[in-house]
Amino acid sequence: MDSGMQEKCGVFGVFNHPKASDLTYYGLHALQHRGQESAGIVASDGKSFRHHRGMGLVTQVFSREILDGLSGNMAIGHVRYSTSGASLLQNAQPLVFKYSEGDLAVAHNGNLVNAAIERKVLQQQGAIFQTTTDTEIIAHLIARSSKKYFERAGPEVLKRIDGSFALLIMTDKQMLVALDRHGLRPLSLGKIGESIIAASETCALEAVDAKFWRDVEPGEWLIIDEKGIQTGRFAEKGDISLCSFEFVYFARPDSVIHGRSVLSIRKELGQILAKEHPTQADVVVAVPESSVPAAMGFAQQSGIPYEMGIIKNPYAGRSFIEPTQELRDLAVRLKLSAVREILEDKRVVLVDDSIVRGTTSKRIVQLIRQAGAKEVHVRISSPMVKNPCFYGVDMPTKEELFANKHEHERAMGKVIGADSLAFLSTEGLLEAVDVDLADTSSRCIACFSGAYPTKLYLK
Amino acid sequence: MDSGMQEKCGVFGVFNHPKASDLTYYGLHALQHRGQESAGIVASDGKSFRHHRGMGLVTQVFSREILDGLSGNMAIGHVRYSTSGASLLQNAQPLVFKYSEGDLAVAHNGNLVNAAIERKVLQQQGAIFQTTTDTEIIAHLIARSSKKYFERAGPEVLKRIDGSFALLIMTDKQMLVALDRHGLRPLSLGKIGESIIAASETCALEAVDAKFWRDVEPGEWLIIDEKGIQTGRFAEKGDISLCSFEFVYFARPDSVIHGRSVLSIRKELGQILAKEHPTQADVVVAVPESSVPAAMGFAQQSGIPYEMGIIKNPYAGRSFIEPTQELRDLAVRLKLSAVREILEDKRVVLVDDSIVRGTTSKRIVQLIRQAGAKEVHVRISSPMVKNPCFYGVDMPTKEELFANKHEHERAMGKVIGADSLAFLSTEGLLEAVDVDLADTSSRCIACFSGAYPTKLYLK
Amino acid sequence: MDSGMQEKCGVFGVFNHPKASDLTYYGLHALQHRGQESAGIVASDGKSFRHHRGMGLVTQVFSREILDGLSGNMAIGHVRYSTSGASLLQNAQPLVFKYSEGDLAVAHNGNLVNAAIERKVLQQQGAIFQTTTDTEIIAHLIARSSKKYFERAGPEVLKRIDGSFALLIMTDKQMLVALDRHGLRPLSLGKIGESIIAASETCALEAVDAKFWRDVEPGEWLIIDEKGIQTGRFAEKGDISLCSFEFVYFARPDSVIHGRSVLSIRKELGQILAKEHPTQADVVVAVPESSVPAAMGFAQQSGIPYEMGIIKNPYAGRSFIEPTQELRDLAVRLKLSAVREILEDKRVVLVDDSIVRGTTSKRIVQLIRQAGAKEVHVRISSPMVKNPCFYGVDMPTKEELFANKHEHERAMGKVIGADSLAFLSTEGLLEAVDVDLADTSSRCIACFSGAYPTKLYLK
Amino acid sequence: MDSGMQEKCGVFGVFNHPKASDLTYYGLHALQHRGQESAGIVASDGKSFRHHRGMGLVTQVFSREILDGLSGNMAIGHVRYSTSGASLLQNAQPLVFKYSEGDLAVAHNGNLVNAAIERKVLQQQGAIFQTTTDTEIIAHLIARSSKKYFERAGPEVLKRIDGSFALLIMTDKQMLVALDRHGLRPLSLGKIGESIIAASETCALEAVDAKFWRDVEPGEWLIIDEKGIQTGRFAEKGDISLCSFEFVYFARPDSVIHGRSVLSIRKELGQILAKEHPTQADVVVAVPESSVPAAMGFAQQSGIPYEMGIIKNPYAGRSFIEPTQELRDLAVRLKLSAVREILEDKRVVLVDDSIVRGTTSKRIVQLIRQAGAKEVHVRISSPMVKNPCFYGVDMPTKEELFANKHEHERAMGKVIGADSLAFLSTEGLLEAVDVDLADTSSRCIACFSGAYPTKLYLK
Repeated sequence: MDSGMQEKCGVFGVFNHPKASDLTYYGLHALQHRGQESAGIVASDGKSFRHHRGMGLVTQVFSREILDGLSGNMAIGHVRYSTSGASLLQNAQPLVFKYSEGDLAVAHNGNLVNAAIERKVLQQQGAIFQTTTDTEIIAHLIARSSKKYFERAGPEVLKRIDGSFALLIMTDKQMLVALDRHGLRPLSLGKIGESIIAASETCALEAVDAKFWRDVEPGEWLIIDEKGIQTGRFAEKGDISLCSFEFVYFARPDSVIHGRSVLSIRKELGQILAKEHPTQADVVVAVPESSVPAAMGFAQQSGIPYEMGIIKNPYAGRSFIEPTQELRDLAVRLKLSAVREILEDKRVVLVDDSIVRGTTSKRIVQLIRQAGAKEVHVRISSPMVKNPCFYGVDMPTKEELFANKHEHERAMGKVIGADSLAFLSTEGLLEAVDVDLADTSSRCIACFSGAYPTKLYLK
Repeated sequence: MDSGMQEKCGVFGVFNHPKASDLTYYGLHALQHRGQESAGIVASDGKSFRHHRGMGLVTQVFSREILDGLSGNMAIGHVRYSTSGASLLQNAQPLVFKYSEGDLAVAHNGNLVNAAIERKVLQQQGAIFQTTTDTEIIAHLIARSSKKYFERAGPEVLKRIDGSFALLIMTDKQMLVALDRHGLRPLSLGKIGESIIAASETCALEAVDAKFWRDVEPGEWLIIDEKGIQTGRFAEKGDISLCSFEFVYFARPDSVIHGRSVLSIRKELGQILAKEHPTQADVVVAVPESSVPAAMGFAQQSGIPYEMGIIKNPYAGRSFIEPTQELRDLAVRLKLSAVREILEDKRVVLVDDSIVRGTTSKRIVQLIRQAGAKEVHVRISSPMVKNPCFYGVDMPTKEELFANKHEHERAMGKVIGADSLAFLSTEGLLEAVDVDLADTSSRCIACFSGAYPTKLYLK
Repeated sequence: MDSGMQEKCGVFGVFNHPKASDLTYYGLHALQHRGQESAGIVASDGKSFRHHRGMGLVTQVFSREILDGLSGNMAIGHVRYSTSGASLLQNAQPLVFKYSEGDLAVAHNGNLVNAAIERKVLQQQGAIFQTTTDTEIIAHLIARSSKKYFERAGPEVLKRIDGSFALLIMTDKQMLVALDRHGLRPLSLGKIGESIIAASETCALEAVDAKFWRDVEPGEWLIIDEKGIQTGRFAEKGDISLCSFEFVYFARPDSVIHGRSVLSIRKELGQILAKEHPTQADVVVAVPESSVPAAMGFAQQSGIPYEMGIIKNPYAGRSFIEPTQELRDLAVRLKLSAVREILEDKRVVLVDDSIVRGTTSKRIVQLIRQAGAKEVHVRISSPMVKNPCFYGVDMPTKEELFANKHEHERAMGKVIGADSLAFLSTEGLLEAVDVDLADTSSRCIACFSGAYPTKLYLK
Repeated sequence: MDSGMQEKCGVFGVFNHPKASDLTYYGLHALQHRGQESAGIVASDGKSFRHHRGMGLVTQVFSREILDGLSGNMAIGHVRYSTSGASLLQNAQPLVFKYSEGDLAVAHNGNLVNAAIERKVLQQQGAIFQTTTDTEIIAHLIARSSKKYFERAGPEVLKRIDGSFALLIMTDKQMLVALDRHGLRPLSLGKIGESIIAASETCALEAVDAKFWRDVEPGEWLIIDEKGIQTGRFAEKGDISLCSFEFVYFARPDSVIHGRSVLSIRKELGQILAKEHPTQADVVVAVPESSVPAAMGFAQQSGIPYEMGIIKNPYAGRSFIEPTQELRDLAVRLKLSAVREILEDKRVVLVDDSIVRGTTSKRIVQLIRQAGAKEVHVRISSPMVKNPCFYGVDMPTKEELFANKHEHERAMGKVIGADSLAFLSTEGLLEAVDVDLADTSSRCIACFSGAYPTKLYLK
């Protein structure tokens, strides 16, 4: 993955389990790839909340002692990534409030496109905000709803917000689970005996040994409490527009989304890529780890052997002291290394899952050449990223996008030093991800095509 | 001081100084005795806020780097003490909000007696709360005010809140300074050239070399901005009811309140105590540090020499590992030690400023006897504390108060092991603290007398 | 890898480079897999030392500020893993001493088999020890050597120590590099222009973009100083007995040892394994990450397709809160997950690089069955581990070793729940690792065979 | 105290008490004024050591958990102050070693004047050093002693070292207590039932409620073990040369040294000062806290009333962010404040215990003038400091000493802005501190007079 696009959140919830916080901790650990900046858990014992949030990874934020303090049969948790500056603990989720009906906690993956206007209206009505998140709007809307009880106010409020949201809301006794009408973010349900689990991805259900139950449907809400599970809709069942970048890069390969394993889809992306762009070469290598399945698919389809030509330092994920000017050239070498025995005198197909800024791609191509490769053919298992995302993905400005800086693949290939460069087509992408879905369904491919599934609003 | 009563906050503000945050840091350091649990500073550069808050002492919460980040010509700061449980960073002040008019920061010393009812009404109107502080109510009231501009909404809101408040409120461009109608907490103003400083005590003005300007009057507000200083009243000028415990114990001895140095008043309390309770003895000693002035006053009046018979470990303020059961008897020795050369075979007058729970007094009397004293006569430079404080002082429940557990001084004396025990009379207290004030003025002596200066409200 | 065997150290040194400490930091980061408990760097500016050591990963121990303080043209560094208890910072290397000739720093990978007797003799001569490491012995021997200058004393001392040692010793102006007579640990040399680099593995040379120069020979020493490079031998050139577990598991796959890439050898181990134990199956999967190359080799040889049937949580390396009793069964799921789409109804070959205790193997087999596999055939790309290592590898006691608890592969297979279990033969191992070496050369296979290449000593 | 002279260590030891480490923790807390840079405790259960050392105050270095880990019936502890640079944890005491007879721990207050030559000789014999402390020499000498058992080797070694040392040495089963032949540092013994306590000052005995037993005599050693207490001498009983600065400033006022309370001596210093330098004035004030007793003595003798004219910020001891250039003038105000009500229009006698650099004195005089004083007469309760200390006190170089920069008191007074300045005479000092001692005894007054009680050695 050429650094640049970043999923921003993961959510996890447990209803009716004596170890609710422990399970949430493990669930968040399994969802850590969706957000590394902050983590938080709110637990309820049916009467009041206990919560803890902190900056950093799940493993850094929680200790055994803290976790033991988060007692109760219900819990929701959140991992978050964000770009904004300094003191951001206040933005860490789940957000926790007190309102007329008691305690309220909100964990949200996604982005409300009508946040700016709703925030303005709320402020004009006298609301005060303590965070800069769009998530706080949801709590205000619930507190101000004309519907008195949470089970009415909660679903009502969902009609008023637009954009992407995989949402867990907890009161002292109830949990609301909801997914935006376009199903832009994944959200699945599982069971452990009588306990209900909700998670951004099925890999988190697997981590806590929950049995997969079903995906939450776009436009659907569930309220889970002592009386059982109520479900309803705040929007008609329409097209599903799940973010296709979840398949390309964001989701963990062992997750299953809408019935398909992400791993299989990534392999298929590589196979279609090989069909679309046949290449004469001796070896296929991947940019580890994310691109390995696509590279294996490319190899299977093309008959060119897949080899581990690039190795990732297993400790590369840790934030290390960046090289100063004198040693700047080492940047890529500290994370990746090329295996000369595999690459020397070879024509190499380098498979990556995407190019966003292009800067890393250039360095990797150079690394492969230094290891003796004769030719380097870069193949990308997704289309060119050309448009901003309004649904919660952090990415560069339009001007910074590699695909907007250069006219065509040939020019781009030169810039990164490759002998050739080719991207998967949008059709190829849809073919791979769309198979098991009924004909009305679809995917959000706005970052590739510019066709946004929701209304957009001025800020 | 027999542990038990604890001032809960100090506030400090700077308008129009290039080093506003640095000055606030030093001002808070000088006010540290008013609150040791958390500290915070919010600065404004006229356009937006930067803020930092943390648990611990001012010196622990801020670093040079953090302080350098708090740029701007205006700043308000707060130190806080609180009894409540675990994760309290969210309650640290100044509280910071965004509302329809922009940014808002609130720093508050005191306690709103009508907080519970106002909070309930606000929640019924749809307000959501992120803290358990009464201070957050003030921000909600401003945001919901029918008056549009802050300079109108701010003063308006002051009419609606009751209780004790020395208050600093900041927007991006303005600072509001206000004191409750009873003047229950001290609040003074100073100047450094063209800069305006507000502080809970004059010792903080001295620390930053500001010239004392004047005390804020009860029921008065000031709004300071680029246009200058506006002042007004939200309540008629009436009786001043400044907390008399500020003179007895809370305030720093080098502070000047309403024209009198706290040090002088404490000496005078000791002198009146000596007149009210003449004692045959060889030496007067104090419980250091707070009771030294009263002991010196007692010595001057009685002619009995003052000596440093009890020495405080200079590192006693640090929180150390408390002795476990086996070594429990060491508790007082780790903080105080008795000087045998001064106490042996002597009749000792032990002056303390107050008795709240009585537990420490007993241990100190024992320590003095172990050092060889023949007689120990305890003299307290304030009346018996019998009633709860509703104005922001943390103290034990009525049942835990020493004076409510025993019928008269003789019984109390026996409990603490003294040969005699005597308290200052309420008249004596008022005589010492009241001198420079006009006849209509007064002091809050509710914790001694039970006569509260404000309405009280059900919770 | 079935947890249980653990390499204990990595060393890295730089001579004559203006950024010696920065390079050492990056080199140690590349060697982090060889030791995660502590890290340290000592730098010399030709006159005196600056050093820093700490518990934890390289990225945790050093900050930009600390690194900037480690100025000088020479540096040596060390990463360490250890089993011993609490306060072990004192054992972190490089060890630093002052002796009659000036400063001395020692970084050591390996284990001295005659440490106990040498330590006893030294203590009887009046030596005092501050660590419990065998490495401190080397410093004492140098300080007590009858040879006056370091360039004589250093090589002299090497004759007196026995066992495994890849050794870097630094004085204010000189660096000594040495490898034990059996070459039990890897140690390579590289160059960056005029600068000399020494590293436990070539992956660290790659990380700092050093050109590989040559391996240090068994029994060889080099002293590098302003006058140039002197080399010599403290032992005759004999058999090389490099630890074969370096190839099986310890070394990074992108390292090259004695001319062979570790990756290729691991693939070859898998190929030979497939030849030795042909298996009827539908899919080959690996225990990630370490066993992937062997699994790919097995697949290539057998013609059974390799698939990513087990996925590792990318954050699994972080130490997380272990599940308490109620959730104990989650232990393996928090690290690994099985992909149902790949495994369901399949006959699975599971390739792992070794079995030490057997506990993890059992859990992984179970995980694969839960994902629907029809049959699970476990194939291990190394022989059975039956004997303790005396050369610096941390492993369980003889009684705890899986291979010593059960009579034959069939019994072992039952214990871990596999349909069949097979190990690579010792001959197969030697065939894979031995190819490019002359006929006199060999490998240490003592943990498999019990034939130790050195004398052993009583403790 | 005008900053500049700094005691460097305190020692505390416990033999035969089930809570040995807890008592040592409290004892060190009481000795914290003798060293704030690092703290350490070593405990023995009769078989092996457990130890913990860290940078910072006793309360920062130890937690309940750490203390609980330091089990055993014996313990020694140390607090240390030092000027040297960065990574000094290695120099923190007690130092711990392993040698031929087992474990060895050394805690040392003082300075060996023959350290450089002994270190050189030891290094030439092959010793290696891990610290830069003179204390490590003692351990080497014990390990190399020709006497086999510790009870012989320990006392033997004391004959070979010269300078100042209050020394606690512990083996697994024994404790050695020793004081240098001149008795330059204080060292007292106490008892709690059958337990023996050793401490630098009696205030630490008081803190743990130990009964004072006796002072250790100069030149005396004690070895305490299961068999009881052996004592002996390594030097003839000669003149006592206890550091007179202990009385002037270092020791806590509640300590008793050679039978005299430090508090009383300080008062007497003030009385003699008043006799030597009669002054016309209205009020006597002290630089708090250390100079209060001397100021009270001055007031008693002169008949001029003592008042609390300068108040210290109770949090001044914490290290705060120093004012940057723009606010430099605040430096003294952040620590001290002057009480106008006491000082205005007054002729003030300012009593300080010493002037070392003179910089602080100047600022305090200015502060008093700003508070309205008409005249400021500075009176110092010790003679001029003119000579370096070789016995473990940290002080400025000879050139930096205030008394060496100016010819006479008149010139010095001008520099600090005082109307007059006067120092106590050496005779006056000796009169105050010498009373209860036999005629042969004496005090070390080398820093005032230049007459050193020991041999001096080249470095």
